[in-house]
Amino acid sequence: MSKRRDTLKLGLFLRATGHHVAAWRHPGAQADAGIRIEHYQALARQAEAAGFDTLFLADSVGVRGIDSPVFDRLIAPHLTFEPLTLLAALATVTRRIGLIATASTSYSEPYNLARQFASLDQISGGRIGWNLVTSSDAASAHNFGGSGQAAHADRYARAREFQQVVDKLWDSWEDDALLLDRDAGLFLDRAKRHFTEHRGEHFQVRGPLNVLRSPQGKPVLVQAGASEDGRELAAATAEVVFAAHQSLHDAQAFYRDLKGRAQALGRNPEHLKILPGVTIFTGASEAAAQAKHRELQELVQPEVGRELLSGLLGGVDLSHLSLDAPLPRDLPLSNASRSRQELIQKLADEGLSLRQLYLRLAGARGHWTLVGSAEQVVDQLEAWFQGYGADGFNILPPTYPEGLDDFITFVLPELRRRGLVRQGDYEGRTLREHLGLPYPQHPAARRGQEAVA
Amino acid sequence: MSKRRDTLKLGLFLRATGHHVAAWRHPGAQADAGIRIEHYQALARQAEAAGFDTLFLADSVGVRGIDSPVFDRLIAPHLTFEPLTLLAALATVTRRIGLIATASTSYSEPYNLARQFASLDQISGGRIGWNLVTSSDAASAHNFGGSGQAAHADRYARAREFQQVVDKLWDSWEDDALLLDRDAGLFLDRAKRHFTEHRGEHFQVRGPLNVLRSPQGKPVLVQAGASEDGRELAAATAEVVFAAHQSLHDAQAFYRDLKGRAQALGRNPEHLKILPGVTIFTGASEAAAQAKHRELQELVQPEVGRELLSGLLGGVDLSHLSLDAPLPRDLPLSNASRSRQELIQKLADEGLSLRQLYLRLAGARGHWTLVGSAEQVVDQLEAWFQGYGADGFNILPPTYPEGLDDFITFVLPELRRRGLVRQGDYEGRTLREHLGLPYPQHPAARRGQEAVA
Repeated sequence: MSKRRDTLKLGLFLRATGHHVAAWRHPGAQADAGIRIEHYQALARQAEAAGFDTLFLADSVGVRGIDSPVFDRLIAPHLTFEPLTLLAALATVTRRIGLIATASTSYSEPYNLARQFASLDQISGGRIGWNLVTSSDAASAHNFGGSGQAAHADRYARAREFQQVVDKLWDSWEDDALLLDRDAGLFLDRAKRHFTEHRGEHFQVRGPLNVLRSPQGKPVLVQAGASEDGRELAAATAEVVFAAHQSLHDAQAFYRDLKGRAQALGRNPEHLKILPGVTIFTGASEAAAQAKHRELQELVQPEVGRELLSGLLGGVDLSHLSLDAPLPRDLPLSNASRSRQELIQKLADEGLSLRQLYLRLAGARGHWTLVGSAEQVVDQLEAWFQGYGADGFNILPPTYPEGLDDFITFVLPELRRRGLVRQGDYEGRTLREHLGLPYPQHPAARRGQEAVA
Repeated sequence: MSKRRDTLKLGLFLRATGHHVAAWRHPGAQADAGIRIEHYQALARQAEAAGFDTLFLADSVGVRGIDSPVFDRLIAPHLTFEPLTLLAALATVTRRIGLIATASTSYSEPYNLARQFASLDQISGGRIGWNLVTSSDAASAHNFGGSGQAAHADRYARAREFQQVVDKLWDSWEDDALLLDRDAGLFLDRAKRHFTEHRGEHFQVRGPLNVLRSPQGKPVLVQAGASEDGRELAAATAEVVFAAHQSLHDAQAFYRDLKGRAQALGRNPEHLKILPGVTIFTGASEAAAQAKHRELQELVQPEVGRELLSGLLGGVDLSHLSLDAPLPRDLPLSNASRSRQELIQKLADEGLSLRQLYLRLAGARGHWTLVGSAEQVVDQLEAWFQGYGADGFNILPPTYPEGLDDFITFVLPELRRRGLVRQGDYEGRTLREHLGLPYPQHPAARRGQEAVA
């Protein structure tokens, strides 16, 4: 297979103190990052200077782990800024880098969400993406009068309709709706207003949106679901997909499957970028990288490790099990991420003890973990990229700011040397341009062109 | 009555192109302000340099006037940024000025709103206020599956419970909940976590909020309702009230009424600041001020004036009436602002024609309008302040940026000369400090103090 001509896309997954479960205990981490806006702003500026295509913020509408008996040791990254207000604050201190925030379709209204994302796209000059998720956790459900027992299929049915409404709302005004004709007294062109008029099972929304069409036409649509429902929705609508794989084989299978589904639906598979997550421990040498990894692993508290594992398994009780015994094979599957549960079961099948298991997952909750010199790390990244397991990567530094410093100091120059990433400054202005995604023309403009053709 | 020792508080009511209905047609206005973040940021910086206590953003979750036959001439200020994302973007380019955004309780969830405002208070370092409103207009209702016919009392019952939930969510964590004890592995103090456990008629919310307690303890609570329900809610909970009066007599009656209600509920009436809105045309002389006023009035399109009037009356059809005839006395009252309808009826009783009426209201939708030299304007403001009709004013410049420039150039120096406003730089850091409002201690801390006493 010939070498790919496109470049590898880079996202930076922000997370208060870092992605390693013990990050906040590390001397180099910003332990109170959740209330330090300057911390986030400095990271955003640093990532932009390094040429990352985008930042990414995860989200949950409840405190994950709040019912754990060791929540006071566990929840450091979950008490922080709300993503949409944070994104606006980061947009004003950066000029080029993309900004992606997660927002759930389960407990909000499409009008409110469409509006905030369109507003952010205006504020940032066209650099916004929406990571669409559904919420399955009880901690979130309990904040909205629910029990958290909504079936998987129902959550996705609502999500699909929600996305359709948002998409229509973003087309409320054509690109050139503003006339600003002071003399004639005409502020805008009435022919370029479009009511949404959505009447569906979950939502009735008339529109139009009270924000004009945004610089990107529409914010970039991002998804991460790996279930059957999740893949179907992503294949139909997503422009970026965040994935979590432990092996090139799994990454390739997912990549082929999702691009194939998109193509079968009539989409250009190149307009769907797949970015697996990867957490990287690196340094001036392999030994230095391993020392950094070891230092963090030793900070994992056993009771936190047990809870981490329990949480990733959807809250199953592991408190009676010995840390040095293997995980039982007959644990009940839960409503939580199916792919994460399957990964853990696979590792358990290798005979790992509870302790070995949680240490494997401590780096970034089951994301791919690399420990090594810059050359070793880039060999791996290159293999995934050239092997069509990834169009790029979502980087999850184990700690902030140190883990990001290390990536920029060691890995990025090696990626550049091999021509795998953009060489100079950003070529474009919008997130779509950074990622090579097309501008979504307004349906009325498309119809106009077809009429001419 | 002796002279007041406190100073007059100043808010700046931002509105894309300005508050005059024809503002966007004025050569000095920023007609496309709604998509120019730099415009808003420049205004915020200018207001801070001038020492305003706070900025204020109104809101609506639909396009006001969208069903008007002349919407294309009318809706200039209603297609702009969403207030909470805009506030975050303004927070990062300012350091001291307060930032108040409107958000409705009618179509959102208390957890989402409590969270975004707490996050904004963290981002801004304690400068945020929430203007709590209910939504009665059909344009908004239609975006959320509703008809817009929810009864006034029902809207307020939901609003009251909504506010209670938000208030409890803001107390999820005590001020000093963070321990950050790296050696012991304790991130926070489990005794300082408080579940919300709200089970009411409209909402069931368990909490806790996933944002720590904010620098102000809680964002400042602002309201503007003038109805009986609105006054009751404001007396019980508001810390700032925006009002709309045309005469000192009306302002004083409202002031006495609201402060009296607050006192009757056991509150210190000084902890409720009343700021009537005022739109000011001023210049180097009275003649210059009048010329500026006239210039804008002449830009009012008759069809827009008629629609403005119809809109303020809640959408009543006036299309068959002559502009030079008086307003009929038997117009049906609607679901819209009762105080605005009564004001219009009062003006109509004076025999004003439709044209005269809409020109009276064109300045700022029925807010008090002053046209004159700095001295004439400040005479009026001082009379309202010293006469206990106001604790300060919410300034509504007829155009942006010119109207603000004029206020700063002419009126502000005269206010300073008379010792009516703060002389030097901001003394405090938070909006509460600017306004002389107390820090809301956490209930657990209050209980602790009582136990000691």
